[in-house]
Amino acid sequence: MQIPVIQKVLAANDLIAEELRAQFEKAGLFVVNLLGSPGAGKTSLLERTLERARGMKLGVIEGDLATSLDADRIARFGVPVVQVNTGGACHLDAAMVRKALGSLDVSGLDVLLIENVGNLICPAQFDLGEACKVAVCSLPEGDDKVLKYPAIFSLVSAVVLNKLDLVNHLNFNLPDFRRHLAELNPDAALMELSCLTGEGLDRWIEWLGLRARKAREPGGRSQSPAQCRE
Amino acid sequence: MQIPVIQKVLAANDLIAEELRAQFEKAGLFVVNLLGSPGAGKTSLLERTLERARGMKLGVIEGDLATSLDADRIARFGVPVVQVNTGGACHLDAAMVRKALGSLDVSGLDVLLIENVGNLICPAQFDLGEACKVAVCSLPEGDDKVLKYPAIFSLVSAVVLNKLDLVNHLNFNLPDFRRHLAELNPDAALMELSCLTGEGLDRWIEWLGLRARKAREPGGRSQSPAQCRE
Repeated sequence: MQIPVIQKVLAANDLIAEELRAQFEKAGLFVVNLLGSPGAGKTSLLERTLERARGMKLGVIEGDLATSLDADRIARFGVPVVQVNTGGACHLDAAMVRKALGSLDVSGLDVLLIENVGNLICPAQFDLGEACKVAVCSLPEGDDKVLKYPAIFSLVSAVVLNKLDLVNHLNFNLPDFRRHLAELNPDAALMELSCLTGEGLDRWIEWLGLRARKAREPGGRSQSPAQCRE
Repeated sequence: MQIPVIQKVLAANDLIAEELRAQFEKAGLFVVNLLGSPGAGKTSLLERTLERARGMKLGVIEGDLATSLDADRIARFGVPVVQVNTGGACHLDAAMVRKALGSLDVSGLDVLLIENVGNLICPAQFDLGEACKVAVCSLPEGDDKVLKYPAIFSLVSAVVLNKLDLVNHLNFNLPDFRRHLAELNPDAALMELSCLTGEGLDRWIEWLGLRARKAREPGGRSQSPAQCRE
C-alpha cells in the first residue's frame, strides 16, 4: 500500500528536479547536493570552502529539521544563504529547493551548495536537480560506512572523508575504507581531508572549481553525474 | 496525499508494538530501542555491555540497511542475536521486530537490546514495543545535535554520550550539550562514557540492571518511558 504512493511522490519530485536542472544548466550554475550523517562536518566543509574558494561566487541552501544554526554560520561569510527547515522531514526535496530559490538570488553565482538534512539514508532518493551528489563522511563514524549504507555511496560523484586529524586516535582502517568505495563506486573521487587543520582541502577546492568552470562553458552542458566524475 | 497513508502505517505499527509490549511485560523482559547516527557507537556500546553485564542474560536484534557486520560482532559473545536487513528502509518497525522474534529465543532473557538503523530522524516515529528508547550520540558529531534533532532527543529515556576519550581533540562544549538536553528533556538520564577506554560504562550497566530487575518484579509493571526515568 505504501510503495505506490512513495513512487508517486518520487515521480512528482523528479519532474520538479528536472525543471531545476534545466534552469541551473541555462544559468551555468554548478549545483552540489551535500549528503552525510549528522555531525560528519557538512557545514564545516562549507565554511572552509567559503574561506578558500576566492575565485568562485558561492551560494548556500541549508537543510535541517529545526533551527537556523547552520545558516547563521554561513551568513557570517556574507554569501547568499537560505535555511530550509523541513519541520521533521528526513530529507530535502526538489519542491523545497524551488521554494528556497524564491528567497535566494543565484544570478551571477558560480556554485550553489545544498547541504541536505543530516541523514545517510533517505536523501539518496530525492533528486534536487543537482549536477552532483557528494557524500561527506568522517573518520569517527567508522570504516564500514560504505558497506552499511551502500545506496548513498553508490550514487555520489565524490566522497569527502573528513576529520583526518583524528586518524591517530581512532581504529579507522583507511585502506579498507578506500577499497570498499572503489569496489562499490569506482568512479567516485575520494578526498581525504580535515576541516580543522585544513589538510587536503586544496584538492576539494580544485575539484569544485574545475566543475564550476565546465558548467560555465558556452553551449551549455548536461550536468550528469558521469561528467562530474571526469 | 502522503500524510494519511503514513498515519495508517503508523497506526498499524502501533497495534503490533502494543502486542509486543504486552508480550515483553508478561515475560518480564526489559526491552531497549537504541537509536543514533551512523557511527555513533551503538554496536560498540552493545559489545561493552555484553562484556560487563555479567549478571544479566541479554539478547540482541541488529537493524541495518545491509550486511550482517554488526550481528557478526555480537555473535562472538555467544548471546542470542538476529540481524534484520531492512533492504533500504530507514528504520525498524514493529513488524520487523515481531518477525525477528521468530528466530530469537527470548525465554529466560532479562534484557533485549534492539539496535535500530543508523539514523537520528526516522526511527523516532516507530514504536517497537520497547520499554525505553535510548539515544547514542558521540562527541565528534558536535554539541548541537539535541537542538538540531529535537524529535528523537525529546522521546528518549536516556542519552549515552559516547567517545568521551576524544574530548581533548575536539571543539565539543560539554556544558552546552548538557544544558540543551536538560532544557528539551529534563527527565532523560545522561551518561557520558567511552566505549574505547571504558570510562563511564559502569553507570550505564547500573542503569540497565536496575530497570531489568524492575521488569522482573512479580505482579508485572507497565514499562512506560516515565518509569524508565525513575
